[in-house]
Amino acid sequence: MSETFLTHLECGACGASHEAAEPQTVCKKCEKPLLARYDLAAARRSLRPDAMAARGGGLWKWRELLPVRDDASVVTLGEGSTPLIPTRALGRKLRLARLFVKDEGQMPTGSFKARGLAVAISRAKELGIRRVALPSAGNAGAAAAAYGARAGLEVTVFVPKDTPVANVKETVAAGAVVHLVDGLITDAGRFVSAGVAEGKWFSLATLREPYRIEGKKTMGYELAEAFDWRLPDVVVYPTGGGTGLVGMWKAFEEMEALGWLRAAKRPRMISVQAEGCAPIVRAFDEGAEFARPFENAHTSASGLRVPSAIGDFLMLRAIRASGGCALAVSDEEMIAAMGEIARDEGLLVCPEGAACLVALQKLVARGQVGADESIVLFNTGTGLKYLELLP
Amino acid sequence: MSETFLTHLECGACGASHEAAEPQTVCKKCEKPLLARYDLAAARRSLRPDAMAARGGGLWKWRELLPVRDDASVVTLGEGSTPLIPTRALGRKLRLARLFVKDEGQMPTGSFKARGLAVAISRAKELGIRRVALPSAGNAGAAAAAYGARAGLEVTVFVPKDTPVANVKETVAAGAVVHLVDGLITDAGRFVSAGVAEGKWFSLATLREPYRIEGKKTMGYELAEAFDWRLPDVVVYPTGGGTGLVGMWKAFEEMEALGWLRAAKRPRMISVQAEGCAPIVRAFDEGAEFARPFENAHTSASGLRVPSAIGDFLMLRAIRASGGCALAVSDEEMIAAMGEIARDEGLLVCPEGAACLVALQKLVARGQVGADESIVLFNTGTGLKYLELLP
Repeated sequence: MSETFLTHLECGACGASHEAAEPQTVCKKCEKPLLARYDLAAARRSLRPDAMAARGGGLWKWRELLPVRDDASVVTLGEGSTPLIPTRALGRKLRLARLFVKDEGQMPTGSFKARGLAVAISRAKELGIRRVALPSAGNAGAAAAAYGARAGLEVTVFVPKDTPVANVKETVAAGAVVHLVDGLITDAGRFVSAGVAEGKWFSLATLREPYRIEGKKTMGYELAEAFDWRLPDVVVYPTGGGTGLVGMWKAFEEMEALGWLRAAKRPRMISVQAEGCAPIVRAFDEGAEFARPFENAHTSASGLRVPSAIGDFLMLRAIRASGGCALAVSDEEMIAAMGEIARDEGLLVCPEGAACLVALQKLVARGQVGADESIVLFNTGTGLKYLELLP
Repeated sequence: MSETFLTHLECGACGASHEAAEPQTVCKKCEKPLLARYDLAAARRSLRPDAMAARGGGLWKWRELLPVRDDASVVTLGEGSTPLIPTRALGRKLRLARLFVKDEGQMPTGSFKARGLAVAISRAKELGIRRVALPSAGNAGAAAAAYGARAGLEVTVFVPKDTPVANVKETVAAGAVVHLVDGLITDAGRFVSAGVAEGKWFSLATLREPYRIEGKKTMGYELAEAFDWRLPDVVVYPTGGGTGLVGMWKAFEEMEALGWLRAAKRPRMISVQAEGCAPIVRAFDEGAEFARPFENAHTSASGLRVPSAIGDFLMLRAIRASGGCALAVSDEEMIAAMGEIARDEGLLVCPEGAACLVALQKLVARGQVGADESIVLFNTGTGLKYLELLP
């Protein structure tokens, strides 16, 4: 059974081709992330956007453009098809006519991480992998634990010791082994790498395995479908590892090759980070191709506490190619925005999601968005995991 | 603009007809719940099940069978169309081939209460109501606060003082006034009624206003659609106020009148309660038409801590007519089941949802379910709000 148009994996930096039928990590030549490639010409002949829209909901409606070969390998908790919620009260205050929040909090495990891990765990199971580990800021570990439990995989998660207690508890509840690390997610990553070297597990660290991004890219497909196969003018997205931003950009490219889009124009991609941890913002401002590790990284938006990311150059490339930018916001601003969004729109968002509103407010103040542009803020997770930030 | 087939309201006990175009509470004759009635003969001529299925997702796809007249009145956060998740690992242990969890945790405000409050708040707004109040075990108050914030209504919530802190925080975050009551939800209800008498607000207490049940009934429509316009053999549902169970039963009745169902057989409805608060179980066992208030009600499943419910006779009627039953489970059992479901299926459910698994285990032990029957357990909310119950 083969329902995917997956052909091979290709290095995002040097372009080297890799076999997709066996487990892969990063590029064997340059150690940069591998990207899944599909026979999009064949897919274009058999898939039509109106037929895709008629398929109903969920991440797996994009089945042929995901890397899993056999239906029996699919591990699902009903993820995907999150609502695009018009936020008119916020829009009125900013004098913006078409402002939306894509609410990834309405998802298994309460965050956008479910997309990437649903696909990565399904593919790991399909490739015969039995034990996986990953470093996490919290939500990815919880999602890996949940999908791993369904798939019958052994899951080990390394998180910074100040990760929100909600994340730790839900990860443990799903039967994963959780190690609290005295340090940042990059330090947690070193423990995972050490275990890989010892043959203990396969690493699911984002962009160090090629399929989490495939799950995340479905956010881009969903945006296109929601906007009737056009794309919004502006996408505001909180970037830690940045897999979502890079994934959506990949989806836009794929949909262009598939001939699904009514207009060639892609959104301006706005990367949002925390002032206490803004490596991409700094690299963007400096015109650098790669981002230097951010010193003394700190922010209460745990998902943004990522001082260095292997996909940095892919993020920077997409932001620049789109005519977008990268912006940092303070913890105080994002926590205040959590309250503002809850009171104005009834949406309890995570601080990373709230950071997008703050970034948009700055863009409006600078005159960098038009009043009639369609703008999507990404709320990457439920605020229920961050109750300690609320009064 | 009139897109609903709503005709009038009818008392669920004495049958007295009431005008739907103005705000209504309970029956003016006998003070029992009012049920919305539709011109189902006309609806049958214009609505076909395959066309409904093709509409895509969300609660408002059932637009014509909901009580809101004007599209502009609809207040939505993207609720509805929750996944029906096959739970094969749990099924294997119980030797059940077709076991599912309907996961209402993947919803705005993280619970099934979003359905009822989305519809009730939309209709309240449409009827010109500006201030609402309700007693709540926690989740209903949070949902009312969220939809109320979007609708621009003033929301006041009365909850028992030992309501989970997550519920209180999310309700306050959305701008509602929260009063902690030294007592149970029935005591909270007395404060709401007192305010009604003083003209302070309109009461959204469930089944004391006629439209929350209309939102809840969409769970029944979704079940039918998911099972290709048949119905599952068994529905296991945690009943506090019981609006969901009564609402689904109402949906089954409506769909029969609409001619949408391929088979006349309705599910056996299993009401699940906590040993520390089981008025419906006691009334069912006693063969009573109404349930006496349960003394010294206590359970850590806050949604089941409802010692008396105005819809008791409607619940009991549906359970009996369906050939179902009512079962009580202990707090220890349901908390253990939360862990079991998380480890086996990757689903972090609320204790009320976990109680359904325990009830099913008892039914299996008694030989009251068949190995090939299709069985749906309702998880009514995310476990993220009950982290204090996890190790």
